Amino acid sequence: VSSPPRDHELPASARRRLTPVILGRESTDAERARTLAATVSTGILSTIARDEAGTPFGSLAPFGLDGGARPVLCISELAEHTRNLRTDARCSLLVAQLPGSGSGGDPLASPRLTLVGRAGLVPDAEVGEARAAHLAGNPHAAGYVDYGDFSLWRLEVESVRYVGGYGRMSWVDLAAWRDARPDPVEPFAAGAIEHLNADHADACLLMVQRLGARPDAETATVTRVDRYGMDLEATGPDGGGFVRLPFDDPVSTPAEIRTATVALAQRARQAGERS
Amino acid sequence: VSSPPRDHELPASARRRLTPVILGRESTDAERARTLAATVSTGILSTIARDEAGTPFGSLAPFGLDGGARPVLCISELAEHTRNLRTDARCSLLVAQLPGSGSGGDPLASPRLTLVGRAGLVPDAEVGEARAAHLAGNPHAAGYVDYGDFSLWRLEVESVRYVGGYGRMSWVDLAAWRDARPDPVEPFAAGAIEHLNADHADACLLMVQRLGARPDAETATVTRVDRYGMDLEATGPDGGGFVRLPFDDPVSTPAEIRTATVALAQRARQAGERS
Repeated sequence: VSSPPRDHELPASARRRLTPVILGRESTDAERARTLAATVSTGILSTIARDEAGTPFGSLAPFGLDGGARPVLCISELAEHTRNLRTDARCSLLVAQLPGSGSGGDPLASPRLTLVGRAGLVPDAEVGEARAAHLAGNPHAAGYVDYGDFSLWRLEVESVRYVGGYGRMSWVDLAAWRDARPDPVEPFAAGAIEHLNADHADACLLMVQRLGARPDAETATVTRVDRYGMDLEATGPDGGGFVRLPFDDPVSTPAEIRTATVALAQRARQAGERS
Repeated sequence: VSSPPRDHELPASARRRLTPVILGRESTDAERARTLAATVSTGILSTIARDEAGTPFGSLAPFGLDGGARPVLCISELAEHTRNLRTDARCSLLVAQLPGSGSGGDPLASPRLTLVGRAGLVPDAEVGEARAAHLAGNPHAAGYVDYGDFSLWRLEVESVRYVGGYGRMSWVDLAAWRDARPDPVEPFAAGAIEHLNADHADACLLMVQRLGARPDAETATVTRVDRYGMDLEATGPDGGGFVRLPFDDPVSTPAEIRTATVALAQRARQAGERS
């Protein structure tokens, strides 16, 4: 996966953008997609309506992923989507992390994922595993998974579209989708970002100045923390720009994020002493 | 629209349910659908993929409604859904108010709406109105609405499916959808519910006991406030049950909600004095 055109991420009014500085490994789109699917447990199912025109029909569908990264749905025979799927197995599941209503966030900056394929009833022999996979993603189904009108369905994924926000999008390789692991630090990332920006702004600025090839920087804001490193937005007299700094080793816990960011800050200070 | 089977709203473990007590006017599904569409500004568009199978494809689509309650989209020629619509106009737009990730809310208890029809480019003569309708729903589009690769599209709605949660669902009449007005107190409803339950629980209990035909009630919790009245969940030795109490007149402001609920509380107290 090549690096995306970052300059699309800004509103039209933004000032001059510098070439992104990308050091070290970034999460792949497959990894981002699997992370998103591990974070969001309600998808939107698109099926083919049973009207004459065969119009695509969108509906809510909580899901869990099974061991093969296939979405498992628990749906009612009374629901439109189930009746649609019984007539035509083609469908897709959109998984999106939207900003809250009224939060003012830009929805098109949100990551989202479309899993495209065909859905079928889970065969009897595999219902146990599928049931567990669904319940792991959607505990509310415990209230109805064993009702007579609900059945477990599985989406056999044929293609995967990932859109990470403005300017980051790709069709994800199927094997990469299956094999990728969700980012273990995603549940802690928002807290880490808030902490770094609130309490360690000076250290972050030093990092982009001395490690991120932006000696002119006057501000640096952390915008992403993942297992491999962190993204920052730097601004200075030369313009605004994206800086990616790598951790020494992949992290998987809040303590490891802390150790890795402390190491980056130390290295930035030492780089100053040497210069 | 007939009243829905309320007993589906509870988990399997719930205790005995009493017959709902529904006094006065409820919001119609058309009104609930229009209210939802006025509250949520990002839909999920289902289009027909340009693959051999013609698989339905879900994607994010911020929208605004025009004067005819038609969704207006602002979409890029670079996006899959636009390329899909140029090949096949059939589509639907799902609008859902989901519980936040990690909130623990049950997604299938969420209201949602599917607008089914065909999308086309807005004709030149109508672009001004459509542009304003889109921007009213999605102010973020100001950053790209005039970009060369973005165009305004309009969904000509042919059918409307509303699901209000467990046990409330219908196909909404098209004229009713067009003519319904969003509930003016929806933006204040959550605050009013919280206030009533936190500070006026005794008054609410009196209301269900004396006005809501539940003299056995021991607890009463407000679950919904709309322009026409309020829903409560009452529990007591006889079981749990739904109680709907009407306001004297439709309300449209926080002050009017207050006046209307004070009037209900007074009437409940007076009913006690008379008995």
